[in-house]
Amino acid sequence: MQDTDRDLLPEGLGDRLPQQAAVSQRVRRTALDAMASHGYERVETPTIEFEKSMASRMAGVQVRRMFRFVDPVSLRTLALRSDITMQVGRIAATGLAAAARPLRLCYAGQVVTIKGDGLDPARERLQLGAELIGSDSVAAAAEIVEIAIEALRAAGASGISVDFTLPDVVDALSADALPLAASQIEAVRQMLDAKDAGGLVDAGGEAYLPLLYAVGPFETAIERLAAFDNAGVLAGRIAGLREIAARVDGKARLTLDPSERHGFEYQSWFGFTIYAEGVSGSLGRGGTYRILGQLGGQDGEPAAGFSLYPDPLIEVLASEPQDTKKLFLPLGHDARVAEQQRAVGWTTVAALGEKDDPIALGCSHRLENGEAVPL
Amino acid sequence: MQDTDRDLLPEGLGDRLPQQAAVSQRVRRTALDAMASHGYERVETPTIEFEKSMASRMAGVQVRRMFRFVDPVSLRTLALRSDITMQVGRIAATGLAAAARPLRLCYAGQVVTIKGDGLDPARERLQLGAELIGSDSVAAAAEIVEIAIEALRAAGASGISVDFTLPDVVDALSADALPLAASQIEAVRQMLDAKDAGGLVDAGGEAYLPLLYAVGPFETAIERLAAFDNAGVLAGRIAGLREIAARVDGKARLTLDPSERHGFEYQSWFGFTIYAEGVSGSLGRGGTYRILGQLGGQDGEPAAGFSLYPDPLIEVLASEPQDTKKLFLPLGHDARVAEQQRAVGWTTVAALGEKDDPIALGCSHRLENGEAVPL
Repeated sequence: MQDTDRDLLPEGLGDRLPQQAAVSQRVRRTALDAMASHGYERVETPTIEFEKSMASRMAGVQVRRMFRFVDPVSLRTLALRSDITMQVGRIAATGLAAAARPLRLCYAGQVVTIKGDGLDPARERLQLGAELIGSDSVAAAAEIVEIAIEALRAAGASGISVDFTLPDVVDALSADALPLAASQIEAVRQMLDAKDAGGLVDAGGEAYLPLLYAVGPFETAIERLAAFDNAGVLAGRIAGLREIAARVDGKARLTLDPSERHGFEYQSWFGFTIYAEGVSGSLGRGGTYRILGQLGGQDGEPAAGFSLYPDPLIEVLASEPQDTKKLFLPLGHDARVAEQQRAVGWTTVAALGEKDDPIALGCSHRLENGEAVPL
Repeated sequence: MQDTDRDLLPEGLGDRLPQQAAVSQRVRRTALDAMASHGYERVETPTIEFEKSMASRMAGVQVRRMFRFVDPVSLRTLALRSDITMQVGRIAATGLAAAARPLRLCYAGQVVTIKGDGLDPARERLQLGAELIGSDSVAAAAEIVEIAIEALRAAGASGISVDFTLPDVVDALSADALPLAASQIEAVRQMLDAKDAGGLVDAGGEAYLPLLYAVGPFETAIERLAAFDNAGVLAGRIAGLREIAARVDGKARLTLDPSERHGFEYQSWFGFTIYAEGVSGSLGRGGTYRILGQLGGQDGEPAAGFSLYPDPLIEVLASEPQDTKKLFLPLGHDARVAEQQRAVGWTTVAALGEKDDPIALGCSHRLENGEAVPL
């Protein structure tokens, strides 16, 4: 969001003025319509919930990022939502527990955190996404990647690229071909994530070094990963990645970074980050996961999904010249003619008094004798 | 919002499941599109702001209805927005202070209060509306009433009725034809608002009794009001009401209740409440007002606007049978054919595995040999 008045609004919170807001609305609608066309049904979730209910479905560390306050009615702690995915997981586990699987849901809404993310000072962001609940198969993952690309393209993004990762690659390898002591696993993960070859060796993960080089354009990186995986521990995952890549071939530039883990702490075998040309930073991420905090002590349901944070895309699109066609209706115009003009797509601006200036009001045309005449 | 799980969500907060959420989205889009077609440009405002900034633009009594909490970043008190109108007023007075007038803005968003409103336990509501900033003329008021009706009709409401009021009628009369002591004014207002004839007499407002009978269908009530106003103090207001009524004649059933004041504490000469057939309670209100809390000590700008709270309409519309046409895509379907079907308006649901059941997944058709075959 744009910071329009630092004196009046808290840091990291802002308004969207007409040009930005029009683009924001268009991005939301087109992205949601793309998801809906694939059978993802919209759900809406509350702005605030019990902190405990949210926390049970999120990573503990995330709770500290939420605004929390006491509810004078229940005297319990509430939190402002900082993520909608887990609210959708709650719906899948409660209100839609009996709905047929796979269950396809989509959402859009504002999320708020106490602090911005890294270098981005924004504390409120638009989040929109889709969740496919009941499966974390390759087919489910492929559908989710395909729809994430399609939603961003529908929203106006171009030059989309997708970076694949295997969030549980260390778990898979350390349990089998490349054993690690339990105490080493976290350090090896961190060094891989940091791309720190020296640190990786120090952490006892020398055998994992080739993972740092199975990185880059998908086709060559996946070959390197397959060559490294001579024991075949990752064979299923590699075949899955290849199947997903084939599905989206030609729709996005694909890269692989199998040990990228930041932001994928809760994904299972598959994760991805999505980018667009001319937009700095990622626009969202997704992957396969299990829904946390299911009732009745069951294991969580498998799922696949993605979240988009399109604010940077909105800024870029809003900086491009917009097409504005507006028809000025002079005093004493025929209301029925004006209605007909709106029905064929005109935006009309009616004069309220003699002084109303069509040019200053941004009009491109003026209604004269029942016709739109350019100004 | 529907209360889907009392164990997990705080009182007065709820999810919208797919049927409700689809209607909610449709209501929002169609109402906003109706406003946009009249030149009202969308703005978006933050979910939270400094409490003081909000409070300076609201009635003091409203501040107590807001959730408030300390911002760990600024160490100042923030509040969750309970009204968007005053945020739009802030934008008009700051970011868009230099934009040409009349300035037409519209908005939609969730608002949250600590307690529900009267009998309605809901603590979160959808608010959408339009503000016409720079004029509180009869022409401005008429445009606002007309667009409120049109927005609700576009959203699916029928049998719309509008109740007009004159929020400052006691001020106007007591300053001139029917003087009251300063100490009596508030009591007279309250007794009129409560329709308490006895109390009105006790409060010293006997001369105001005829106002209680200038109530009902517009044409007869306005005649009674004009007859009561033999000094002509209200002549301008009465002519204004007649002009507004003529503009919306045939689009809504019109009534008058000139001394209705509850909910119009901050309106100036004109106010209205809007209803639809089959929906209990009002769906919104509007009128003329002055923007509060303008910078630089200026008097507030005149404005006209309305706010709609369409949640009860959404409940009613969502309870009607919805038209669902969904096309099941069996395993191994042709992706290009599926894309063509979506392009012509189909919602598709792709099989992820052999077990996916098109009927259970809500599909009405199945793709066979490139054609949609009814199930």
